[in-house]
Amino acid sequence: MGKINIALLGFGTVGKGVYQTIHTHQHHLLELLGDHVEVSKIVVENIDKHSRYNKEELFTTHFQKVLDDPDIDVIFEAIVGIEPAVTYVKNALKSGKHVITANKEMFAFHGKELKNMADKHNVKIGFEATTGGGIPVMQTIEHLLQTNYITKTTAILNGTSNYILTEMRLHGLSFSEALIQAKKLGIAEADPTNDIEGYDAFYKLMILSDHIFGEQPCWQSVKRQGISHLTQEQIKEWDTCNQRIKSIATLYLNNNKIEASIEPLILNENDPLFAIEGVENAITLEGSIVGKITLSGPGAGALPTASAMIEDFRLIYSLTRTPVESV
Amino acid sequence: MGKINIALLGFGTVGKGVYQTIHTHQHHLLELLGDHVEVSKIVVENIDKHSRYNKEELFTTHFQKVLDDPDIDVIFEAIVGIEPAVTYVKNALKSGKHVITANKEMFAFHGKELKNMADKHNVKIGFEATTGGGIPVMQTIEHLLQTNYITKTTAILNGTSNYILTEMRLHGLSFSEALIQAKKLGIAEADPTNDIEGYDAFYKLMILSDHIFGEQPCWQSVKRQGISHLTQEQIKEWDTCNQRIKSIATLYLNNNKIEASIEPLILNENDPLFAIEGVENAITLEGSIVGKITLSGPGAGALPTASAMIEDFRLIYSLTRTPVESV
Repeated sequence: MGKINIALLGFGTVGKGVYQTIHTHQHHLLELLGDHVEVSKIVVENIDKHSRYNKEELFTTHFQKVLDDPDIDVIFEAIVGIEPAVTYVKNALKSGKHVITANKEMFAFHGKELKNMADKHNVKIGFEATTGGGIPVMQTIEHLLQTNYITKTTAILNGTSNYILTEMRLHGLSFSEALIQAKKLGIAEADPTNDIEGYDAFYKLMILSDHIFGEQPCWQSVKRQGISHLTQEQIKEWDTCNQRIKSIATLYLNNNKIEASIEPLILNENDPLFAIEGVENAITLEGSIVGKITLSGPGAGALPTASAMIEDFRLIYSLTRTPVESV
Repeated sequence: MGKINIALLGFGTVGKGVYQTIHTHQHHLLELLGDHVEVSKIVVENIDKHSRYNKEELFTTHFQKVLDDPDIDVIFEAIVGIEPAVTYVKNALKSGKHVITANKEMFAFHGKELKNMADKHNVKIGFEATTGGGIPVMQTIEHLLQTNYITKTTAILNGTSNYILTEMRLHGLSFSEALIQAKKLGIAEADPTNDIEGYDAFYKLMILSDHIFGEQPCWQSVKRQGISHLTQEQIKEWDTCNQRIKSIATLYLNNNKIEASIEPLILNENDPLFAIEGVENAITLEGSIVGKITLSGPGAGALPTASAMIEDFRLIYSLTRTPVESV
């Protein structure tokens, strides 16, 4: 029995979820992998914020310490934003370390480059957690693509927007009232622009495009409209006809050109996305043979995202396994 | 470039779907596998029924011809009922041929034995198509189990029952009227007992239990109640309160004992299965870390089922690949 040493980059909601899951599922991971999994370094910006953990040897502000540690094979990247994440990830891949990321903005910008870099250095990069939280989106796409062409994808990719629209419909709130409530509950951030203006869904849709079609559409060609202009009256009016306004991400091929958009659309009750309420996410994949498959589940949150990252870990570990000496 | 020879057992809806898909996706399969796929034998009960295909050399009533053909590596079993399917499958596995089955009744009875037999003879048995048609149920369960314990499963596994209940609610039909309509549309069989009395869902639930927990509950302990006793008035009454009656298959562990049931349950609109209408199937898996994931899609039909079988094929082929000489 050996030991697998991993490092965490970032110790916010997702980083803590991974840390916690690795500890609560130690026995399960041991059964699966045949080895103990240990978090041996956590890279943070400000070490003082984490002093209550009383584990000085665990936290560091120096990513170089992770790079220099030959015992660390796998890095879980759970930073928000592009930098320093992308620099860390590039250096990790170049050093022959596998990377698992939950960072959608970074991956929408640099995913293709990072996948190529991973191939070149004979390591893996896992990104299941970037899109759809705990829903196994990437893995299902890979699976479907074995047999089907995926002709169209429609999805609810932003839980915050979907929560706001659900509350407006169910409880007659205005957009501002629903947003205040979402902030109180920790569902919206202090600056909610990324979520309510469709940037978050946009990043995820670009990652999906890379995964399904091998490339992204020209970003300028993608319609991106948020939900802040929607009124209670509009939502109420459609609700009377049993139709719902949802923020829908769409991706399809039109004469071999990738078309993509994020915008509020009116769904009728036959649409598989009609019933997706609150913070849930969902994705409908249209396969050339199988027809429409819909996956739904928790689109964010510490544990669902951690679950997706650890599934990536398991997969990477099983693909690249080399005997590990007992330490 | 070599050739992979496969045999089909049965040439009903599913068998024809597989045959058609292999032909329409010949190019895609070649890209994926690096080899041509050719259906070289189709075993049927009555050869005269298929004379219009004008391919005498393709059809046979003698399974032994498939067994004796060393060039046939993979068998697609799409027969209805236990015999002769299970005898054919056992002999195929013993002869070192991989098997992919869509036969839920046969697999509910003999799945565990057949999996052991496949292991013993170093071949694979694929059964994705037995449950949930084109929805990648088995593969998602395997994936989730890598990280999560699956604590509970609830599902709509019979499209015919769900169609009848949907029509009763939407169009005010009685059970008998909806059943007649389903028969006219080919959604219900001449003898609909298997579907409307819950046997079909029961078989699928037992296969799920084997897959999730490694064993089945004692069959006598499973409550199995159909939908034929439900009245239009009951359905209407619940609908007024925005609740829907659905035939729900449930599977969970209670003090380490597997509990299972198939019965009509009243769902409220927050249930992920509430919105599953018509012939659609859906399954909600509750994972210990990830929470609830729901998959929905076409639960039956020639092409969705063929898609699932060909996905199994791709997986088996990639796992067991040995160089094939050009023929």
